[in-house]
Amino acid sequence: MTLKTLVEHIRQKRSFLCIGLDSDTGKLPPHLAGKKNGIFEFNRQIIDATQAYTVAFKPNIAFYECLGAEGWTQLEMTVQYIRDRYPEQFLIADAKRGDIGNTSKKYAETFFRYFDFDAVTVAPYMGSDSVIPFLQYSGKWVILLALTSNPGAEDFQFLPASNHERLFETVIQKSLAWGNAENIMYVVGATKASLLVKIREIIPDHFLLIPGIGAQGGDLAEVARYGLNTNCGLIVNSSRAIIFADSTERFAETASVKAKEVQEQMEGLLS
Amino acid sequence: MTLKTLVEHIRQKRSFLCIGLDSDTGKLPPHLAGKKNGIFEFNRQIIDATQAYTVAFKPNIAFYECLGAEGWTQLEMTVQYIRDRYPEQFLIADAKRGDIGNTSKKYAETFFRYFDFDAVTVAPYMGSDSVIPFLQYSGKWVILLALTSNPGAEDFQFLPASNHERLFETVIQKSLAWGNAENIMYVVGATKASLLVKIREIIPDHFLLIPGIGAQGGDLAEVARYGLNTNCGLIVNSSRAIIFADSTERFAETASVKAKEVQEQMEGLLS
Repeated sequence: MTLKTLVEHIRQKRSFLCIGLDSDTGKLPPHLAGKKNGIFEFNRQIIDATQAYTVAFKPNIAFYECLGAEGWTQLEMTVQYIRDRYPEQFLIADAKRGDIGNTSKKYAETFFRYFDFDAVTVAPYMGSDSVIPFLQYSGKWVILLALTSNPGAEDFQFLPASNHERLFETVIQKSLAWGNAENIMYVVGATKASLLVKIREIIPDHFLLIPGIGAQGGDLAEVARYGLNTNCGLIVNSSRAIIFADSTERFAETASVKAKEVQEQMEGLLS
Repeated sequence: MTLKTLVEHIRQKRSFLCIGLDSDTGKLPPHLAGKKNGIFEFNRQIIDATQAYTVAFKPNIAFYECLGAEGWTQLEMTVQYIRDRYPEQFLIADAKRGDIGNTSKKYAETFFRYFDFDAVTVAPYMGSDSVIPFLQYSGKWVILLALTSNPGAEDFQFLPASNHERLFETVIQKSLAWGNAENIMYVVGATKASLLVKIREIIPDHFLLIPGIGAQGGDLAEVARYGLNTNCGLIVNSSRAIIFADSTERFAETASVKAKEVQEQMEGLLS
């Protein structure tokens, strides 16, 4: 998907919400938990119920691969379902991959050729040749980890790295040589919203994927205040706070209500 | 697998060789390339032909997941085959995973519970809570990326991080609080063998997984000189230089000869 198409979709929906399909079998409503293809059935109902309020879906690959081939089949069914019914949705593989060049090339094939994701999250530790293979696909995106929202982010991402920059800033700076605002986005943890000011100084034009709204404790208004740019420039994810808001048979209806609430808040922030 | 069992196996085989099953469908011998379960058949023959000279096998997960569910099934067949026939082999999932706590927990379930790997490679960028979930399994190991062998390693791993340490040294130092020499190993690129001296000062007792022998250009004698400790303390991997040494129907026989050559060199270095 091109930048232009993504931005048009955001304007049309008046939303920059992404729903994270962290579809943990242990948290599915009881009537789906034991069922064959239960994850896909759960996803299908969540997608149908929330797609009007969202611009992106983000399956978290760990929750599929822990079921082996059966999990991968349900991931494939989920991606195909979205592609067939809602082709305007931006599809993110939350995979945190990254390896030496010939191996990253295979991971890129996985998510961009075998599956038809629009974007994949990539870990930066191994540097340029671990990221660049993902940038060889026209219309596809790398979402590079910069500043994550978990407690362990403190361990390395804030270390003083070079030229008075912290490691997450150096990751962003160096990666500017590998791609541009039409093929790289950055993961920026919403729990560090004040740091958005600094990040927007380095990358005013790039899209940011903000993972921390909801269960991880970020504040949407603060993120919008410091993160929005003229193209919107934000995709804000919510996973558990929407998809697991209700564990009864009415889970999809509740998810729809929760997603609509977020969309309405976003509409206010966009205008 | 316990440290004691691993060390006994190394002494018995007089080898610290790991064979990387980077079983790229594009590089399989022509008579297997188009065949159903061709990757498993290739792996099976490589494993049978080389297991006498090796202490570990390391499937590179990217080469399986790029085929979707079919690839995962062949990975499962490969792991099961090794577990059934050669239970003494140390089985490494080269996956470079790492995410927030609840997601790393799922990745750990994938490789330690769904599969029965002994170890998984983990990327450190997201810090403690991205690594610790992998350390909750008795007898299982994290192999943490410290210093990798690819050109991009220069981008971030050598940055001055703290207390006159470079980032890869800080990664090792901090991780000492998360585990110990009986459940953490480190990836150290063999192309940086002189840096082994510095690393052995920080972690004299830990095992190191050295990925760079063969196609990546490391030198085995130099690695042994600076890396060996009283428990051996090294697992040296070779992938393409052994498994793709011959593209004819005699590929397994050639792989056996190549593995034996490396084992004999290792036997000399161990004594």
